[in-house]
Amino acid sequence: SSLPVGKPFTSDFFFRQLFDEESSTYSYLLADLKTGEAVVIDPVLEQAKRDAQLVKELGFKLKYAINTHLHADHITGSGWLRELTGCQSMIAAASGAKADVYLEEGDRIEFGSHFIDVLATPGHTNGCMSYVIKAQGCVFTGDTVLIRGCGRTDFQEGSSESLYENVHSKIFTLPDYFRIYPAHDYKGQLESSVWEEKRYNPRLTKDLEEFIRIMDNLNLSYPNKIDVSLPANRECGVYDIPKE
Amino acid sequence: SSLPVGKPFTSDFFFRQLFDEESSTYSYLLADLKTGEAVVIDPVLEQAKRDAQLVKELGFKLKYAINTHLHADHITGSGWLRELTGCQSMIAAASGAKADVYLEEGDRIEFGSHFIDVLATPGHTNGCMSYVIKAQGCVFTGDTVLIRGCGRTDFQEGSSESLYENVHSKIFTLPDYFRIYPAHDYKGQLESSVWEEKRYNPRLTKDLEEFIRIMDNLNLSYPNKIDVSLPANRECGVYDIPKE
Ligand SMILES: [Fe+2]
Ligand SMILES: [Fe+2]
Repeated sequence: SSLPVGKPFTSDFFFRQLFDEESSTYSYLLADLKTGEAVVIDPVLEQAKRDAQLVKELGFKLKYAINTHLHADHITGSGWLRELTGCQSMIAAASGAKADVYLEEGDRIEFGSHFIDVLATPGHTNGCMSYVIKAQGCVFTGDTVLIRGCGRTDFQEGSSESLYENVHSKIFTLPDYFRIYPAHDYKGQLESSVWEEKRYNPRLTKDLEEFIRIMDNLNLSYPNKIDVSLPANRECGVYDIPKE
Repeated sequence: SSLPVGKPFTSDFFFRQLFDEESSTYSYLLADLKTGEAVVIDPVLEQAKRDAQLVKELGFKLKYAINTHLHADHITGSGWLRELTGCQSMIAAASGAKADVYLEEGDRIEFGSHFIDVLATPGHTNGCMSYVIKAQGCVFTGDTVLIRGCGRTDFQEGSSESLYENVHSKIFTLPDYFRIYPAHDYKGQLESSVWEEKRYNPRLTKDLEEFIRIMDNLNLSYPNKIDVSLPANRECGVYDIPKE
């Protein structure tokens, strides 16, 4: 069996993935091509100028800078993009971070005629959200589902059990052809699909007990930038903005 | 004015961009989701195992490993993919490199019900090809058009004049909404469009005379890996294949 025939993006949906090499973070610029209203998911501070420039070149109006969670490995670009473009910042209420808009499960984020459904998928952190665009067949999973992996659960109120239950009940129940867009990849992979991760994810295909054992034995080092990133990201990334 | 409404990929067309961090190279795995026939454009030697694994996981049969040109900055993965998957390698006849199939302008590369039209776009090297998929509204430009840039023209029979003329007559004449997928980017940008590059490419929007002046004054250093990459790539990348 091979990957099922998919659901293409509609012609008025703009999608552009962007990469920050230092933190291996993917950001996503999405827009309604008819109205020009745009959102960015998981922008990175060091790339905020690049992203604002691209928004301007494409003739878009940035409405929201949306975070999947309180990142520990880089500073969010939402604070600076807010200053550069006048957009509003968004993050889960449960994250404890400051933002213009606090998100909860069931919220709907609109831009032009498109909308994002907000799913609470705590586990990597207690404030992790996944963002689904049903009409486009895609989900932005942050660090909840990575390509053939998942985020660590040993910091920030992480819980292996919650991560596993949320992925299985909220992500793996989406149609097989749904594209998965994560917040990171470290091997040059850019996207995945529900079909692929349900078959090939080396952690999440295990049963809960074995998954917890795997997660308990990762022996990861203390995150490099956590002591800088967390305080900054709690303030919507407005802390330590680099000068021109 | 903003980016025009686009032409989405058809539901039976599989597209997956892949990245090699060391050389900042993008490879593209394309497939017919109904027949499973696949091709890869510009694979990288160090990623051949990753790419072959992905092809297998997705249930595809790799038909061709296609090079846009004789790369000077990395070794092609086409030789190793040939051994791993039984695919055939392809490169421009004008490149002087060995391959299973030599390409010329006007050739058509078929996989399943999809096909790629081959355009000769010399300038960065004398054997540069661009690959167009009209039905999907996209073009793979190698180093001929980069995102807000273009490949250097001071090595490998490069010619600024040829590059300029070919881009203006063969790439910039494609519809504005056509997606541009280059062989590299060094700033975390993953794709562009004809509309964008016609407006914002800082070199190719100039007139020919100024373009030549810019290209003559780049003062780039001698490419790092050229002395290893060129001999290997002339042999279809079968030289110096790393052991497991
Ligand atoms: Fe994270
Ligand atoms: Fe090149």
